[in-house]
Amino acid sequence: MSYFPQLAERFSELFASIANDRVLVLGHARPDGDCIGAQLGLVRLLRSEGVDAVAYNADPVPDALSFLMEETGIEKFSAEALDGSSLLFVDCADEGRIGPKSSKLIEGSNYLGNIDHHISNTNFAHFNLVEPTSAATCEIIAGLAFDFGWDVDPLTAQCLLTGIMTDTGRYSYAATTSRVFELSARLVDCGARPVTTAQSLYENEPMCRLELLQRFLATLTTRCDGKLGTGYVLHKDFLDTGAKYEHTEGFVDFTRSIEGVKIGVYFEEKKSTVKGSFRAESAAYRVDKLARQFGGGGHACAAAFSTDASLDEIQPRVFAAIEQRLAEVEQGIDV
Amino acid sequence: MSYFPQLAERFSELFASIANDRVLVLGHARPDGDCIGAQLGLVRLLRSEGVDAVAYNADPVPDALSFLMEETGIEKFSAEALDGSSLLFVDCADEGRIGPKSSKLIEGSNYLGNIDHHISNTNFAHFNLVEPTSAATCEIIAGLAFDFGWDVDPLTAQCLLTGIMTDTGRYSYAATTSRVFELSARLVDCGARPVTTAQSLYENEPMCRLELLQRFLATLTTRCDGKLGTGYVLHKDFLDTGAKYEHTEGFVDFTRSIEGVKIGVYFEEKKSTVKGSFRAESAAYRVDKLARQFGGGGHACAAAFSTDASLDEIQPRVFAAIEQRLAEVEQGIDV
Repeated sequence: MSYFPQLAERFSELFASIANDRVLVLGHARPDGDCIGAQLGLVRLLRSEGVDAVAYNADPVPDALSFLMEETGIEKFSAEALDGSSLLFVDCADEGRIGPKSSKLIEGSNYLGNIDHHISNTNFAHFNLVEPTSAATCEIIAGLAFDFGWDVDPLTAQCLLTGIMTDTGRYSYAATTSRVFELSARLVDCGARPVTTAQSLYENEPMCRLELLQRFLATLTTRCDGKLGTGYVLHKDFLDTGAKYEHTEGFVDFTRSIEGVKIGVYFEEKKSTVKGSFRAESAAYRVDKLARQFGGGGHACAAAFSTDASLDEIQPRVFAAIEQRLAEVEQGIDV
Repeated sequence: MSYFPQLAERFSELFASIANDRVLVLGHARPDGDCIGAQLGLVRLLRSEGVDAVAYNADPVPDALSFLMEETGIEKFSAEALDGSSLLFVDCADEGRIGPKSSKLIEGSNYLGNIDHHISNTNFAHFNLVEPTSAATCEIIAGLAFDFGWDVDPLTAQCLLTGIMTDTGRYSYAATTSRVFELSARLVDCGARPVTTAQSLYENEPMCRLELLQRFLATLTTRCDGKLGTGYVLHKDFLDTGAKYEHTEGFVDFTRSIEGVKIGVYFEEKKSTVKGSFRAESAAYRVDKLARQFGGGGHACAAAFSTDASLDEIQPRVFAAIEQRLAEVEQGIDV
């Protein structure tokens, strides 16, 4: 039983080419569960196969994911670390996703590998292992580890399961295939415990987050005959409640979850920028393309952008773009 | 590969004894996803094996679960239906769980089978297929169906997957074993789609529910040095928002999810009664025994009761009982 036969040859080549190198495993800025799980999981797997591997990220690991860091650290980017190392990107649709400062640092380096599941991946590295049918980058890494008979210890399994759980929305999104469940079963057999991830991520809520959630829920409304759901958090709300940016994880899902809503959009007012996040009921709405209109990107059903415009400026522009998209999809236009 | 070898012989005997009977598949009052999934799934499986089976429940099917009823109905209890039929209970810890009126109707009937995963099950029927290591009654039914090589069509698979998804809290509770994931993979291969269940149950929220949730979040507090989390919904809140009782599904989880909380308790004020629901961080807190002190029951980590006392009367009594339980567990007393 092979999970990713289509990636086997390229993975063999990638692995053969790094066997004697120092490898930096890079993930995207503002990392989520799939990114951290993939970075730590892959570093641990590579080390157990004798490769000198280290994980690097521009941003700190969210508190809720710190339980994965028991034995394996994630370093902050630095020019020294790069010297003579090979770069292996995980969960990054393009090399810029590691953050603007880090991107500058790696210019001219050896972009060796790229393991990812984003449909928008630009195949920017030498070995591109991109599989958009996967629900998570951790699914690809877990599948390859089992396909190659590598040793998956309990903490590695926990890292990979965490990526799968988070990027499937706890096994709820359309990409949740039988392969996702089969690999999860294998990871549990290797010692991963779903309850550990769930308790840290979903059942260990700081009271300030619940206060922020309450404020956010009060802003929820629908537009476009109930097909557009939207809500926001103001910079003031963070200050008033003491909540951090990472505490808004999942808020966007509420905008899409309202009965009848096809596209949800969540706005987050930060100190000097505004983040917009989209969720769609189905891939037909291609919210990755909507996000691209505002300088962002992502998946067909989940995408995001960041802007210097104010909340009052950006909202009507985004609503207009969504209204147009809703009409296009309703008319059967392929967007 | 056999999922439930320990139940095989008894299931064979049960099946042999009903082959020519009319079978009523009974579930508990105020049915949830595991109950409805088990009732419909088992009825469909039995019918495909040539058995004349019908599902009965005292209460209506929640709107969010109605997508499972496409082809198979659930009847309301009646004296006529019982005449000469064999009773097969699913997801019922005891025969009284089908509701007080229904319980009266079935007195003296043939309690033939009892398929359940509650640790508190009283083995009240002739053939008791009780497996507390299972996360869901639907897990047992799915496992037996595969063990016996029965045909699992797409809608049957969807029913069984729904029970597994809901009773594992979307694969988040401690009972989420590799068997749970393996069976889920098989059910997806049979045509079940996790996204269908998730969208109906978790991503199709009436606005009135979100308004109720916002009111509920405003009541959240902690006690006992932050180890007890609690919140409530008043009867007035239902009237003001237009939400129904079924819309509070999941509210109790917020009480337990607060950082540091060991036991959460949620109070729901109905027209003339108050419902109390417990959730515990681990089985050591045995909230089923706490619920029993107030006339209820359930699992070690999730239990509930209903009382005629007012909210103001019952709250301090429940808080005192929880405070004592927290102290006992802290002192290592086996409760």
